[in-house]
Amino acid sequence: MTTPADEPALDPAFPLHRGGKIEVRPAVRIRDKAGLALAYTPGVARVSSAIAAQPHLAREYTWKSNAVLVVTDGTAVLGLGDIGPLAALPVMEGKALLFKEFGGVDAVPMCLDTKDVEEIIETVIRIAPAFGGINLEDISAPRCFEIERRLDEALDIPVFHDDQHGTAIVVLAALMNAATVTGRSLGDLRAVVSGAGAAGVAVTNILLDAGIGDIAVGDSVGMISANRTNLGPVKDDLAARTNRLGLSGSIEEAMRGADVYIGVSAGHVDDAAVASMAPDSIVFALANPDPEIHPEVARRTAAVIATGRSDFPNQINNVLAFPGVFRGALDVGASTVTSGMKRAAAMAIAQCVADNLTPYNIVPSIFDRRVSAEVPRAVAAAAIADGVARQL
Amino acid sequence: MTTPADEPALDPAFPLHRGGKIEVRPAVRIRDKAGLALAYTPGVARVSSAIAAQPHLAREYTWKSNAVLVVTDGTAVLGLGDIGPLAALPVMEGKALLFKEFGGVDAVPMCLDTKDVEEIIETVIRIAPAFGGINLEDISAPRCFEIERRLDEALDIPVFHDDQHGTAIVVLAALMNAATVTGRSLGDLRAVVSGAGAAGVAVTNILLDAGIGDIAVGDSVGMISANRTNLGPVKDDLAARTNRLGLSGSIEEAMRGADVYIGVSAGHVDDAAVASMAPDSIVFALANPDPEIHPEVARRTAAVIATGRSDFPNQINNVLAFPGVFRGALDVGASTVTSGMKRAAAMAIAQCVADNLTPYNIVPSIFDRRVSAEVPRAVAAAAIADGVARQL
Repeated sequence: MTTPADEPALDPAFPLHRGGKIEVRPAVRIRDKAGLALAYTPGVARVSSAIAAQPHLAREYTWKSNAVLVVTDGTAVLGLGDIGPLAALPVMEGKALLFKEFGGVDAVPMCLDTKDVEEIIETVIRIAPAFGGINLEDISAPRCFEIERRLDEALDIPVFHDDQHGTAIVVLAALMNAATVTGRSLGDLRAVVSGAGAAGVAVTNILLDAGIGDIAVGDSVGMISANRTNLGPVKDDLAARTNRLGLSGSIEEAMRGADVYIGVSAGHVDDAAVASMAPDSIVFALANPDPEIHPEVARRTAAVIATGRSDFPNQINNVLAFPGVFRGALDVGASTVTSGMKRAAAMAIAQCVADNLTPYNIVPSIFDRRVSAEVPRAVAAAAIADGVARQL
Repeated sequence: MTTPADEPALDPAFPLHRGGKIEVRPAVRIRDKAGLALAYTPGVARVSSAIAAQPHLAREYTWKSNAVLVVTDGTAVLGLGDIGPLAALPVMEGKALLFKEFGGVDAVPMCLDTKDVEEIIETVIRIAPAFGGINLEDISAPRCFEIERRLDEALDIPVFHDDQHGTAIVVLAALMNAATVTGRSLGDLRAVVSGAGAAGVAVTNILLDAGIGDIAVGDSVGMISANRTNLGPVKDDLAARTNRLGLSGSIEEAMRGADVYIGVSAGHVDDAAVASMAPDSIVFALANPDPEIHPEVARRTAAVIATGRSDFPNQINNVLAFPGVFRGALDVGASTVTSGMKRAAAMAIAQCVADNLTPYNIVPSIFDRRVSAEVPRAVAAAAIADGVARQL
């Protein structure tokens, strides 16, 4: 038995985690033999036979249409890196808890004991039948891009890598509102993204889709442009679609005169670089737990500041997106998550604070009930509009 | 949307199954930002870091030590046969429901989209990290034997094929009590088993372990003995360890003078064969939904009769065994399920009706609370005695 010495005495996170954060519960009560004979043999055999004859009935008579796998290989867990599948489990349980709390989705943590891309793909395909969606989580880049793409092609249920798209959706929501509150539209803005991992690539893609004026991405070497060599397929693709000004050199140089800085790496940005941005600059310093620049420092020259932290205004939190994205997708039996569904989710999140928009209130609180109501509705409508909904 | 026409109008099993029979729920409540900061980032990162440094802490701070995968490939679902993984899902959900209701175990249905033995084994190994046990279910024989053996070797958590051992445990419990109520001990009995599939093999093994007088197994060809050829490894092994009388020919011939008949196939036994058994004969006709011989017919000559059905006395129901076996194994962190743990479970089940033993009451009701209390206690004690418990 673990001794109390294992539990850091003053950290309330440990007692809260004791025994785990989720459980599987009966959704129907079995009180007697008659109930048992319906929920289990012989009654269940009639339901199984019906599904064998008409597979679509599984959506009605099982949990499949409400159940999502939260899949990780433990290679990029929060800011902790490759800590392995077992140590990733508390994060996956947390995700499952949030899925239920904010989306009514039944989510199952699935921590894979393999880091091999082919093995991850074939394993998820094999375990998918009982589930209505796949949420990929904390899988390192660039492996995450291929895993998501190939699973999305292979399966007829939504596959969604939250570290990419959850972040991207909330960034788009926040940036639309930041533009509005400073009297501009997305097309007016030139943005610099620091970080070309899962979040950086997805943020760039959604902002391009949404019509941002220009966007350039920097990695640890410097700005990504057509002049760089040996970038690999993901960054080559970024180079072809971004950085119309052909900026090279450092991220801080690229920030000179830019309207928007979005940090999604663990780097640092100094105040001089923020001061060199265009008037009414927008700074999203999203590294956790330490933002790329402290919000108090950025505030000296920037008009709108957001971070990933809950103890500053404007928290960019994936929880605003993923429960509602899956809720909406599951509600209409979507076969995939389209760009349109992601943009619709962002729009719905942004709208939740439209009545009360200030530089310190560009995103809603996750406890704002309108988020849980409006995001699923918008995502479901977009799925129908995009022709990927199974049911109306 | 499915129309009401899909739902057989007069079958209450269908409305009961609507939307599925289980759900994933938070075990802790998150009411505000402070709660979120403990259950999710940044609090969860401290728990994950602690587990990365000391993996055994996963048993304390995640659901692993209470979570079981219910794994099937859909090849031998109830009496329905190979109906595939999706159609098997209602049965797996039912199992998960019973796991929680009668064992407090969090069970997750896992319906695999492969029938290949190697793929099943490697898939289960890859998805095992977040779970404390593996319940194999409705996987056809003889594949189920190799799958269970190799998974048990590869994993350090209990692997238990319920169609084998759940049935075997309850049969042993019932047979011990049937012997007692007719004034005999297990060593006095000669038994004939009809069926050499998952249940037949496991029943034979547990009865041999428990010291039955003699036991012979028949399959569709006839009695299994050393004289048969081309039996395959599983039946070869049975032939070497059973049928000391060297019976050949039909199962009904073998029943002449036998004390016990155990039917675990879908066959039929006529009343003349039952009448030819020894005095005070014991008939377990376990085929579902149609017993090999109707209990009313068997009653003319047999002293004790059991079936798999809830509408006759003496229901041999796995639900008496599997929730308590896993509860007990998980409680002590058992690394496997030993023969001793299975026999201990049978003994505990048998004891629950010791005070009130009659030919019509050789097994307890699953709603008898002593079952949920005593089986885990006995299994945990046996795990400790057998040296496979992780914790005391």
